[in-house]
Amino acid sequence: MIKKSFGKKLLSAAAVTSLVLGGFAGSTPDVDAKNDKKHNYEIKNIIFLVGDGMGPSFTTMHRYMQDDPSTKNMEPTAFDPYLVGMQSTYSWDPYFEGGEGDVKENIPDSAATATSMAAGIKTYNGAISVDMEQERVKTILEEAKEQGKSTGLVATSQINHATPAAFGAHDESRHNYNAIADDYYDEMINGEHKVDVMLGGGTSYFEREDRNLAKEFQQDGYSYVTTKEQLLEDDNDQVLGLFAPVGMDKAIDRDENTPSLSDMTDAALQRLSDDKDGFFLMVEGSQIDWAGHDNDVVAAMSEMEDFEKAFQRAIDFAKKDEHTLVVATADHSTGGLSIGSNGDYVFNPEVIDAAERTPDFMASEIADGAGVEEVLAEYSGLDLTQEEIDSVKEAAQADADGNIDVTAVDNAIEDIYNVRSGTGWTTGGHTGVDVNVYAYGPQLYKFSGLNDNHETGQKLFEVLKAESHHEDQEDDHDDKDDGDDSDAREDEDDDEDHDKDKD
Amino acid sequence: MIKKSFGKKLLSAAAVTSLVLGGFAGSTPDVDAKNDKKHNYEIKNIIFLVGDGMGPSFTTMHRYMQDDPSTKNMEPTAFDPYLVGMQSTYSWDPYFEGGEGDVKENIPDSAATATSMAAGIKTYNGAISVDMEQERVKTILEEAKEQGKSTGLVATSQINHATPAAFGAHDESRHNYNAIADDYYDEMINGEHKVDVMLGGGTSYFEREDRNLAKEFQQDGYSYVTTKEQLLEDDNDQVLGLFAPVGMDKAIDRDENTPSLSDMTDAALQRLSDDKDGFFLMVEGSQIDWAGHDNDVVAAMSEMEDFEKAFQRAIDFAKKDEHTLVVATADHSTGGLSIGSNGDYVFNPEVIDAAERTPDFMASEIADGAGVEEVLAEYSGLDLTQEEIDSVKEAAQADADGNIDVTAVDNAIEDIYNVRSGTGWTTGGHTGVDVNVYAYGPQLYKFSGLNDNHETGQKLFEVLKAESHHEDQEDDHDDKDDGDDSDAREDEDDDEDHDKDKD
Repeated sequence: MIKKSFGKKLLSAAAVTSLVLGGFAGSTPDVDAKNDKKHNYEIKNIIFLVGDGMGPSFTTMHRYMQDDPSTKNMEPTAFDPYLVGMQSTYSWDPYFEGGEGDVKENIPDSAATATSMAAGIKTYNGAISVDMEQERVKTILEEAKEQGKSTGLVATSQINHATPAAFGAHDESRHNYNAIADDYYDEMINGEHKVDVMLGGGTSYFEREDRNLAKEFQQDGYSYVTTKEQLLEDDNDQVLGLFAPVGMDKAIDRDENTPSLSDMTDAALQRLSDDKDGFFLMVEGSQIDWAGHDNDVVAAMSEMEDFEKAFQRAIDFAKKDEHTLVVATADHSTGGLSIGSNGDYVFNPEVIDAAERTPDFMASEIADGAGVEEVLAEYSGLDLTQEEIDSVKEAAQADADGNIDVTAVDNAIEDIYNVRSGTGWTTGGHTGVDVNVYAYGPQLYKFSGLNDNHETGQKLFEVLKAESHHEDQEDDHDDKDDGDDSDAREDEDDDEDHDKDKD
Repeated sequence: MIKKSFGKKLLSAAAVTSLVLGGFAGSTPDVDAKNDKKHNYEIKNIIFLVGDGMGPSFTTMHRYMQDDPSTKNMEPTAFDPYLVGMQSTYSWDPYFEGGEGDVKENIPDSAATATSMAAGIKTYNGAISVDMEQERVKTILEEAKEQGKSTGLVATSQINHATPAAFGAHDESRHNYNAIADDYYDEMINGEHKVDVMLGGGTSYFEREDRNLAKEFQQDGYSYVTTKEQLLEDDNDQVLGLFAPVGMDKAIDRDENTPSLSDMTDAALQRLSDDKDGFFLMVEGSQIDWAGHDNDVVAAMSEMEDFEKAFQRAIDFAKKDEHTLVVATADHSTGGLSIGSNGDYVFNPEVIDAAERTPDFMASEIADGAGVEEVLAEYSGLDLTQEEIDSVKEAAQADADGNIDVTAVDNAIEDIYNVRSGTGWTTGGHTGVDVNVYAYGPQLYKFSGLNDNHETGQKLFEVLKAESHHEDQEDDHDDKDDGDDSDAREDEDDDEDHDKDKD
């Protein structure tokens, strides 16, 4: 394969300008925006992609990973030509009265950030498209459905996890997983279920003892699929596809029965594009974040690759369609990831690339009784030192009851990849850094420069010629000069479910 | 003071678009770029600002620092409205044959990155505007001087440190400080010295036993000033101002005799703008990087504030002038800084804001004999626990010879601020993450989207309607398909001065 150089494949100034003008490659820098037909093409479809936890270090490290060392310039990733700006991610959690034991968090979680992007408002950590008074706010997915468009949610987490939930449900707490799954079925718009295509993990929340949502959806005409093969064979425009009890396996660990994020994105686009009224689709690379929480660089880069391929499918669709806006961003960054650590100026992508499975997978095999040396020899891809092997063996010592601490084994294996690759981490939680925004298609200019995440959400509403519910946000602005924010802080009711665990 | 909300003060989509179009506030999104006079205004002046080490976490943390907690939205920094894109920062060091002991570094240093921005080429770590064959390449400052413009270099490091050096000198190694200082005097363009205004630290390199460059410059008509007062009183268009033996003090530690970065920027603009042919000015916030190397969040945020004020002066000048392009960016990120650490979702700016001096300053007072408790009480700004005080006392134990390890004391004090504020670090070196690019003025659209740092340099040449020396870079592109990079790797001569220490 002929790899092109970074310098050449990155868009020229002219092309970037034409992109920002909502134009397409080939335009000149002084393109007349008013007369650029494509710039004014009607937007029928929106594809919104979220790399959960995908801070700037993740997207740059992904470029290092894909670099062809036989060329001196770094090759661009699929994202690079579409960078238009960044967004800030903080939530209003410090101003939310969460009751006893509530920590005022000025670093955001995925529920607050997803709500900002889905509904155009700021809110507290843990909120699923409810505002600071815990009132429901309309989401862009709901607006699209009201306009008669088809809608879809695709994720590698359970499909009722924080990010997709904030587009298709409402809850005081992200942790009310069953209630969120119920919302997908129970909340009707114009007599229809809100979400036509749901693909991800989560059978345990949809096939429950108290309620079988999978069956209910089927009774209403949805297909229900649980393997890649079933998904590919199905041709129903409405489908619930659940490919794991909770979250799906990391990309590198998936078997042939499990679709990739791009398989699911394709399946969604195929169905949604049948609607002449257009569609809204949210696609989440959910587990970039989970890998970050775990400080697992192998899993993080595996998930980045999975997400990049889904992004490419969205771009390919939009280029052909010409009436589709694609916006891709992150909700926040996770883990305090850095390219380089401990004073060295060397980052070794080949160490990460060598892994055949995630440390989680290897640790789980070991905890299930497989030998440390055998597992590492089969899956690590590395020629390990005795010291490295011993570090894993030590972590894998069974306790008096014969139990192995799988987390300790996981951490020991992760350490090997982190140290050898030169990867740094500072936290098992999130960080506050701004995140990148990529866009393609008509009106992409709306997303250029620096926006706050709630502005990103408001702009999605603008694209659909609708108003987001941001009355409160405006009030807050107006109140600011006299320092009176009390209107937004009055609600001191505690929500017993308001649990801010972030995973 | 009435603080405006982040959401309001950030530019609207319309304004950002008009910015990207090279327009100015008030334009509509569908502005006709061809007919936008300001877009086509001739560029007479370039102000290029470099926040050394200022990765995305630094700019975002600076926003957290400036946040007014009495409002729910975060207020924008001076940079925020001008974000137009990002740049990649890696160097070609892995392809440079540096001889025995040379480490192939794929995380860049400030010399390679400054050379890329100053001369439009990629090169090896440590190179001061020489290419992979260690041949000199013309810099944008030299191009400006050739065109009859005035030129200036402003920094808070010694003025012959890597970043300013790459604009005004040429050397195989950044560590040849005396040779670099000599270049500023010896290398003439059209019979004139290259740099009309030099402001920063570095008396020890200019007033040497073997040569007194300060005197030589004075003999040629330059003013020579060493205090803020002298700088303000001087009105000579050519001036050498050196305010410290090596690097200047951190902003928070400076006394009234030492100018701020914005004082120096003002002084430079005042002089350079007298030239009807225009000017090129490079302004560096040099010690954001040094604070990052030291993992000192107090110093880092102090330096960010100093740099932001200088940026604001550049913007103010450009808004009034209308023929000035301002570009601000970083060369790379340093320290693996993160907003949040150790699993917590809370970052406490007030802890950092409390400090009256840097930990370095406090440690140095202690090493000079002042009492630990007294120094901390006077300068830390914090109500410290006994445990925290004891940690510093322990670090300040004198050894058998009565010497105190000032670095250990410094680290102990830094730890207090890092832990209390929720600041994470992963390295004493640099990291590979992409960095933000801000721009204002005619043709700012050139810098939008993602560029590589050498493309940033090439675009500066384009702005001056000149060609950068990037023949080799193009050759490299052409060679890529057949994998033949040998032309760029032939030079295997070792440079005995090629020392890659990064500080």
